[in-house]
Amino acid sequence: MKENRFYNFNPGPAALPLSVLEEIKDSFLNYKGTGMSITEISHRSKSFDDVMNDAVSRTKRLLKLNDNFHVLFCQGGASLQFCMVPMNFLQGDRSADYVNTGTWSTKAIKEARIQGKQIKVVASSEDRNFSYIPQNIQFSSDAVYVHLTSNNTIKGTQWASFPDTGDVPLISDMSSDIMSRTFDVDKFGLIYAGAQKNIGPAGVCMVIIRNDLLEMVPDTLPSMLKYTTFASKNSMFNTPPCFAIYTVQLVLKWLEETIGGLEKMEEINRQKADCIYKTIDSSDFYKATADIDSRSKMNVTFRLPNEELEKTFIAKAAENGFAGLKGHRSVGGCRASIYNATTLEATEALSDFMKTFERENG
Amino acid sequence: MKENRFYNFNPGPAALPLSVLEEIKDSFLNYKGTGMSITEISHRSKSFDDVMNDAVSRTKRLLKLNDNFHVLFCQGGASLQFCMVPMNFLQGDRSADYVNTGTWSTKAIKEARIQGKQIKVVASSEDRNFSYIPQNIQFSSDAVYVHLTSNNTIKGTQWASFPDTGDVPLISDMSSDIMSRTFDVDKFGLIYAGAQKNIGPAGVCMVIIRNDLLEMVPDTLPSMLKYTTFASKNSMFNTPPCFAIYTVQLVLKWLEETIGGLEKMEEINRQKADCIYKTIDSSDFYKATADIDSRSKMNVTFRLPNEELEKTFIAKAAENGFAGLKGHRSVGGCRASIYNATTLEATEALSDFMKTFERENG
Repeated sequence: MKENRFYNFNPGPAALPLSVLEEIKDSFLNYKGTGMSITEISHRSKSFDDVMNDAVSRTKRLLKLNDNFHVLFCQGGASLQFCMVPMNFLQGDRSADYVNTGTWSTKAIKEARIQGKQIKVVASSEDRNFSYIPQNIQFSSDAVYVHLTSNNTIKGTQWASFPDTGDVPLISDMSSDIMSRTFDVDKFGLIYAGAQKNIGPAGVCMVIIRNDLLEMVPDTLPSMLKYTTFASKNSMFNTPPCFAIYTVQLVLKWLEETIGGLEKMEEINRQKADCIYKTIDSSDFYKATADIDSRSKMNVTFRLPNEELEKTFIAKAAENGFAGLKGHRSVGGCRASIYNATTLEATEALSDFMKTFERENG
Repeated sequence: MKENRFYNFNPGPAALPLSVLEEIKDSFLNYKGTGMSITEISHRSKSFDDVMNDAVSRTKRLLKLNDNFHVLFCQGGASLQFCMVPMNFLQGDRSADYVNTGTWSTKAIKEARIQGKQIKVVASSEDRNFSYIPQNIQFSSDAVYVHLTSNNTIKGTQWASFPDTGDVPLISDMSSDIMSRTFDVDKFGLIYAGAQKNIGPAGVCMVIIRNDLLEMVPDTLPSMLKYTTFASKNSMFNTPPCFAIYTVQLVLKWLEETIGGLEKMEEINRQKADCIYKTIDSSDFYKATADIDSRSKMNVTFRLPNEELEKTFIAKAAENGFAGLKGHRSVGGCRASIYNATTLEATEALSDFMKTFERENG
């Protein structure tokens, strides 16, 4: 491949579109005639304002957000959002529903509880090692919000569609599948997503928040921990993570102008996932770990007949230019993360490699 | 100049060493043979571990930190530190002393008070528009810490030396002068610094914390808001801002290996500041705004005879390739920010430009 680049199946930070990386590289010493690097210009300059506003506009167009929604860029990743969500919305004895589908949901629940907030876990798939997405959940009618993790990177499960919670707004950690497919955003009161999987590099977290939730934020929180600070200052109350936001802007431009929007991206992602799942399903050597109807189109988790073979598989893959196929350190096994910027060509090459490896080791 | 680069006097985000930008650019599509961009590699990889550990080691060497200190990389800038410092160290009715030397100190005080923490403002230079650094301050012997802002970017003042607070640890916001000079670090319990002025791009905040302060952190805080989380996980409890930390690493390498350490950097910074202050002091046209003994070596703030001339000066300077000379929007006037990466050559060119402008407009 060009510049000896690997096929990148990293779980995050993950692959970025090559054209985006090339644009960053080409303008790195002198951004659009400013005589400075994008890393050296003021966040109060017209040049950076254009970056921020374009990133916000493209997000609104891609997700078809109406004017009730604000697009914010925060720091601290999804992990800080685990703490900020209950801090901003659960006052007094008000309570929220949480669905536990794995490691990240568990962390979100923990960060709410450590603050003494009232949390009800209304469903969990822990009984079968988080290998499925719970269905037919009874939500609390008086919950302030329902929290769920839309895609579970470690166990390789994903909500195929989102539950009906009536008037109770959904809040979702979409770090690992934002902008990978279309969905009905009107069910959601807040969406957050660490950028480093589908929309950019590590170091920025996109937050989409609806007006009615913004109105619930108490004035008495520290400035950097309340959503109103970010909404009222176009995410520039203090110096934002400029380079990360700039990269997100370029990725969103690529999504709109090169890919052609989320319908197209969703179709490509379906083909990529099909390519690898079919390879697994047509073999007795590879075994997928998630229930079929809960399978993630972003993280394909699978096992080989034994751990020794898994080790050999990952090592051989790396030798052949496939990076990032090791499962999360908490579960082992193998995982191919196939976020937006991983190409169909990469998944086809991986499928070929998997077949060859099976022939030689099966 | 090379690639038509401007002389960059931006107050932050600010100039970075050209050799650092060139190294980032050259390796941007394939970082050290990984087959991936630095923005695409895993933070759990050996490659990124090396970046993180090298950044920490260089910080320890440059500042001569003994083993009582930990070097952390956080997000949210100094603004989140304004909130985290009192949250981590002021429990129950314990109190801290704050010195108010301008906008950033004022914000730090506000973020402590909004949490209901006990704060005593033991000195302030607000009486003369923050144009000086207070001396002979009476500190409280029972304070948990004394907080000060080492350099004030907006008013152009800087602590020439730090006060004796006895056994009470100093905590300092050093965002705008970290690594610009030598100082006795043993007086400090905690130092924090948004990277975007002297040590890197926006999006990462360096925190240096001493063991005894780390031991004061309560377990009951949310994970992302307690220093112990960052200290126990080498700043990788969650995905860190990898690109920003990588850039910091390269800047620290440049400081050690190209500049030759902080003594050398301090001497160059003294020459740069002298160059501009002498131009101002030898003229009746330009007027420095800070008291002489409180002048900042990082931000030279000055006025021209009237606002119309200031506007012309800034516009003409921009036409001639000098960026960022406008004073902060809250105070007006002019400001030359001359952080580490701004060269002596740039300050000499600015001095020449100022003399020419005075001849033509004085």
